[in-house]
Amino acid sequence: MTDEHEDRAQDHLETSLRQVTELIAKQRLVEGLVHKQDMPRHELVEQLVHKQNLAELRTKLDELHPADVAYILEALPLEDRLMVWDLVKAERDGDILIEASDAVRESLIAAMDNRELLAAAHSLDTDEIADLAPDLPHDVVQELLKTLDDAKRAQVVSSLGYAEDSVGALMDYDFVTIRADVTLEVGLRYLRMLGDLPSHTDKLFVVERDMTVVGTLPIKRLLIHDPEVFVGAVMSDDPVTFHPSDDASDAAQAFERYDLISAPIVDAKDRLVGRLTVDVVMDYIRAEAEEDMLAAAGLREDEDLFTTVWKAAKNRWLWLGINLCTALFASRVVGAFEGSIEKLAALAALMPIVAGMGGNSGSQTLTLVVRGLALNLISKDNAKRLVLKELGIAWLNGMVWGSVMGLVTYLLYSNPALAVVMSAAMLLNLMVSSMAGYYAPILITRLGHDPAFGAHVLLTFITDSMGFFIFLGLATVFLL
Amino acid sequence: MTDEHEDRAQDHLETSLRQVTELIAKQRLVEGLVHKQDMPRHELVEQLVHKQNLAELRTKLDELHPADVAYILEALPLEDRLMVWDLVKAERDGDILIEASDAVRESLIAAMDNRELLAAAHSLDTDEIADLAPDLPHDVVQELLKTLDDAKRAQVVSSLGYAEDSVGALMDYDFVTIRADVTLEVGLRYLRMLGDLPSHTDKLFVVERDMTVVGTLPIKRLLIHDPEVFVGAVMSDDPVTFHPSDDASDAAQAFERYDLISAPIVDAKDRLVGRLTVDVVMDYIRAEAEEDMLAAAGLREDEDLFTTVWKAAKNRWLWLGINLCTALFASRVVGAFEGSIEKLAALAALMPIVAGMGGNSGSQTLTLVVRGLALNLISKDNAKRLVLKELGIAWLNGMVWGSVMGLVTYLLYSNPALAVVMSAAMLLNLMVSSMAGYYAPILITRLGHDPAFGAHVLLTFITDSMGFFIFLGLATVFLL
Repeated sequence: MTDEHEDRAQDHLETSLRQVTELIAKQRLVEGLVHKQDMPRHELVEQLVHKQNLAELRTKLDELHPADVAYILEALPLEDRLMVWDLVKAERDGDILIEASDAVRESLIAAMDNRELLAAAHSLDTDEIADLAPDLPHDVVQELLKTLDDAKRAQVVSSLGYAEDSVGALMDYDFVTIRADVTLEVGLRYLRMLGDLPSHTDKLFVVERDMTVVGTLPIKRLLIHDPEVFVGAVMSDDPVTFHPSDDASDAAQAFERYDLISAPIVDAKDRLVGRLTVDVVMDYIRAEAEEDMLAAAGLREDEDLFTTVWKAAKNRWLWLGINLCTALFASRVVGAFEGSIEKLAALAALMPIVAGMGGNSGSQTLTLVVRGLALNLISKDNAKRLVLKELGIAWLNGMVWGSVMGLVTYLLYSNPALAVVMSAAMLLNLMVSSMAGYYAPILITRLGHDPAFGAHVLLTFITDSMGFFIFLGLATVFLL
Repeated sequence: MTDEHEDRAQDHLETSLRQVTELIAKQRLVEGLVHKQDMPRHELVEQLVHKQNLAELRTKLDELHPADVAYILEALPLEDRLMVWDLVKAERDGDILIEASDAVRESLIAAMDNRELLAAAHSLDTDEIADLAPDLPHDVVQELLKTLDDAKRAQVVSSLGYAEDSVGALMDYDFVTIRADVTLEVGLRYLRMLGDLPSHTDKLFVVERDMTVVGTLPIKRLLIHDPEVFVGAVMSDDPVTFHPSDDASDAAQAFERYDLISAPIVDAKDRLVGRLTVDVVMDYIRAEAEEDMLAAAGLREDEDLFTTVWKAAKNRWLWLGINLCTALFASRVVGAFEGSIEKLAALAALMPIVAGMGGNSGSQTLTLVVRGLALNLISKDNAKRLVLKELGIAWLNGMVWGSVMGLVTYLLYSNPALAVVMSAAMLLNLMVSSMAGYYAPILITRLGHDPAFGAHVLLTFITDSMGFFIFLGLATVFLL
């Protein structure tokens, strides 16, 4: 990649971040000087520099898209973050809060008083208010609801009622409707009269008087067909629709499969209640992927790069505590064979290999199964085949790596019986691990949890304990 | 979630999958009967049932969207997949191949001869042909290029020239351009004349005679403004553009940040060369997330749920081999202390806890750093702070869990010195692990690789070896 070919959007953002960081550094320097030197002669000059600096920073921030400001805030340590946040124009606060990641949003809200929060929320659409509400203090939400008109209040309240991972929680109310019995000409005039269209309006929703959705009219068709034609004649009468209670990740998959930009959300009687758009779906996909990644390491979303040490440590304790319990259990399995280990210390050196290879091999099965479950690819019809396939792979891998480790053991310890026990333990533990990798995510899904969270702990628990048990058990029976 | 509120899109897909599976099962049953019974009287009847069944399956498949057929193919074991694939109308082959995941696509292509492949590719756009080409046999690609006209051949060849993760590899050529010095009326007439618009056309690209992009005209503005106005007066003259060599994941982040539906791709002289659309970006985001997840377990994309045992096992060997090497190294560290373990077998039971907790704690740091790197949030300016924060957390966690394990050790073994060694080893290894979790992904990124792939192996290597070394070393020095 040559310099002139650099991504402009990304480039622009990184340059902005660098500029802001430099301005903050300058600012800190000036503050430091003001603080250290108490010579009155200099004070005036420094106050001027101080002010000029802040003004420059403020101008820079005003030029940036709210999403870019949110990005910059995330890359800054807490005190710099709050300093920049103070410089942002109050009327942009709401938009920036909406764009910020959960952890950053929380840190910003913590620094605002109720009056500021109320003002920030006021500039937002009802679906955005509903997004923000769970992070706001209870009294601010109550106050905010009072200031809205009845229709908007009803929208916010109903949005708040939907489960976090449902379509209802993602939908907005910015749709344009049209009747089937008017001409395109009338439609075009209506749009011109509206003067503006909601973003991501690629289609109008064709409804009856009671808001029953009968079809959609892609803007494209409005443009290319004869204006004399009726909407009903050119509309698409079998649109993809969703219910507010639908699972958001299923809806996201439908958006991907059918390349949708917007889709109507309807109630049980097919009456229009809202709209889902691709930008929200894309944010959801990204957030889900990120959440899964963080959850797999026992991290929660509300930890960002610069969370305080104390808060971050607390955030990670539950996870480490659970893992300590499983490690302790595995340790007690080893403890039960301390007599054998005293007689043959080589067992202690070899046992982590059996456990570790089981863990690695099992996590390959687990990863495939988690993906299959997420995409609804695993059913009763193919489950048995999958189990047999994974067992087959484990057997093959067990033969290969078991033989390799048998040979290595023989070379290291010149003990043929130990080499045979090592091979057999590897083979057996790989078979056990493949079944653990298969059933752990399925069990956790059946219990109603996200397999990304606990499946790996369960797997490690089984592969470690069983690995130690099989290897030390075989050794005790056949070697000692 | 009540029944009537079920996701329609997902529902429809699952029903289709069930129907197809049932039809296949029936078909297999009939085939079994035909095979087993050789009574001539029955043959005719069974052949009829056979044919009727296939016809029903074929009709069902014809009704489905290509993406849905691709989904169903992925959920079917290989032999059923190929049977269904044979029933799909030849003219839909191309579209379905484009929608299928890499592994499924490979299995389908392997079952087609050159003539079929050529026919399938022929129905595709040039950007889709470029997508498919790397999976096709070399002679089919050559043959295919010969049949294209010059302009299209040039597009395919240039698309093939872009790196896999660049914007160029994702772009299409389906844009509509307009000049700045015509009126909206002219624009509207032009669109009507075109008769159809490419999908995801939310804006026209405003260009000069030499194709220099000077702005974009959102369709929205075309609709709501006075038709007498000139394009130049209402166009957006500061559009987000990309270069073909830009990093695709940076472009994806820009699409998310600015909620884009389409964007022009320009060369170094700002001349239009292609278009990037949100559907492709969304597929890319999903594919990246999936690839990272699979890579973290050492799986490659070309393994699907029903890859053959032999192929899947080979696919996983490299990973298991690498892990075996690191496990062997850690095992040799333990081997060096076999004398100590013979004297105090409790060490063997406790050492996996020190190593394991280091691995868990280090992977929390690693996960945060991998996310930070992916979002370009980590820079020279904040690196030092991050290191100090992670060290602080490790120290705090080390004090807490080290104390807990010290107590547990004392309760189990009534050996105060062993308890102190355990606490100290936990604390030290958590500190080492946090640094390994921080530097492993940074090192791998510096070497030009994706941190999702090797960072975890490197981390485990360090936390296991160092965990064993610190614990057994301290024990040897202070206890024996």
